[in-house]
Amino acid sequence: MKVLLVYAHPEPRSLNGSLRTVAVRELEASGHEVQVSDLYADGWKSQVDRADFPSLSPDERLVPAAASGTDFVAGTLTADVMSEIAKLHWADALILQFPMWWFAMPAILKGWVDRVFAYGFAYGVGEHSDRRWGDRYGEGTLAGKRAMLIVTAGGWEEHYAERGINGPIDDLLFPINHGILYYPGYEVLPPYVVYRVDRFDESGFEPVAEGLRERMRTLFTCAPIPYRRQNGGDYLIPSMQLRPGLGRPDATGYALHLDGDGAAREG
Amino acid sequence: MKVLLVYAHPEPRSLNGSLRTVAVRELEASGHEVQVSDLYADGWKSQVDRADFPSLSPDERLVPAAASGTDFVAGTLTADVMSEIAKLHWADALILQFPMWWFAMPAILKGWVDRVFAYGFAYGVGEHSDRRWGDRYGEGTLAGKRAMLIVTAGGWEEHYAERGINGPIDDLLFPINHGILYYPGYEVLPPYVVYRVDRFDESGFEPVAEGLRERMRTLFTCAPIPYRRQNGGDYLIPSMQLRPGLGRPDATGYALHLDGDGAAREG
Repeated sequence: MKVLLVYAHPEPRSLNGSLRTVAVRELEASGHEVQVSDLYADGWKSQVDRADFPSLSPDERLVPAAASGTDFVAGTLTADVMSEIAKLHWADALILQFPMWWFAMPAILKGWVDRVFAYGFAYGVGEHSDRRWGDRYGEGTLAGKRAMLIVTAGGWEEHYAERGINGPIDDLLFPINHGILYYPGYEVLPPYVVYRVDRFDESGFEPVAEGLRERMRTLFTCAPIPYRRQNGGDYLIPSMQLRPGLGRPDATGYALHLDGDGAAREG
Repeated sequence: MKVLLVYAHPEPRSLNGSLRTVAVRELEASGHEVQVSDLYADGWKSQVDRADFPSLSPDERLVPAAASGTDFVAGTLTADVMSEIAKLHWADALILQFPMWWFAMPAILKGWVDRVFAYGFAYGVGEHSDRRWGDRYGEGTLAGKRAMLIVTAGGWEEHYAERGINGPIDDLLFPINHGILYYPGYEVLPPYVVYRVDRFDESGFEPVAEGLRERMRTLFTCAPIPYRRQNGGDYLIPSMQLRPGLGRPDATGYALHLDGDGAAREG
């Protein structure tokens, strides 16, 4: 199979750099083809601006979604974005690897999402009617493919637990897993998260590397997070609210969007 | 009082641009001093990289937190970052204004956080002991100041409601409100969110503008989100878990971190 790993750390000699090597080697050893988009090494442009939309006249008001759609349909998005879109079509699985900074992805990776996930490609896809609200959340351009996160965090695992002060890690990653990856159709796998990386030493590396190897070996076989499909009947259209009666009575927020009535937490 | 508005939209002739004008005028009419950091107009550099850390030797491994701390203490961070830190010290209130893209802030604003919130300034502050886990979550360099978000979203308000498919808006904004703003000490106000902005027309503008004016008039008087203070006794140290017995029995995730036993949702 084919795997695209999008990597966002500025230092190759980092824990992230070592884990990337581990992941790529294990995938290749399993017979997969791997491409890496190394955003820092490639000098990736982070911010969405007028330069992203060659069809926009100099005096025209920039409406990012509209401009993105125009250039996507015309095939005139910038070369760096077109190249990433081609890689996403090519890959059977997408891995995003990054250090969590301020409880979210680094700016350069957010800029990859903002720029590459064009209107007409990753959103603004499909029919809007009384039965369908576009092809999204389980349907869309990238349906049939898999995606997962490899994340490093400075804090302790306990701080990201169900009652931890930072908030549960699955909730912190929900906007990425559900909102960015499931949205255009990916089946999203549980994330691989490494904690306390600020105090990491050599003795801690091998167990973490082995855990990652195991996840790479099961990339195409492990069970995805059971998010509910938008157009499968669980949601009212057009309010897009979970139908009354679905979800455990005491479930709130993100947990409602897991099938199996929220009985299991993600991961 | 003094207010810093950090603004992240690439088009001045956007709804965001109009709302910024409304906010600034109302604040000034109320007698406040206002500074605006217009990230696109200023050509803000989004990504954290080696160029941010002048003290780092060319062959030295970049560890972002460590490098940030070194240059912050030495007063040698880059001029653009130092200028923003000075504005944060100057301001009694911070407003972050942005369009929600992919359920998070645009890359350029995330890059403002990643670069300006230096180690020793916004994190890595205070004593770590069996009684305190640093000055954070309600304490820290920016304690005594207020912060709030002004956010525009393309989707419908219902889609961001408690049972909406996107996830509740308060949960989507928790990593920013709690993880970025409350962390270094800000009292965080409920956000001002405008929905369905892709279909906005003139008739919709005035009610939204008036709502924003009201929020600007009450910037220094309205009640902040009642997040729990980290070192006030509610959390076990060092696991940073909410103490058993605190929080409604059926509360989960982010709602646990609201004082008043999670009885009220944020906002």
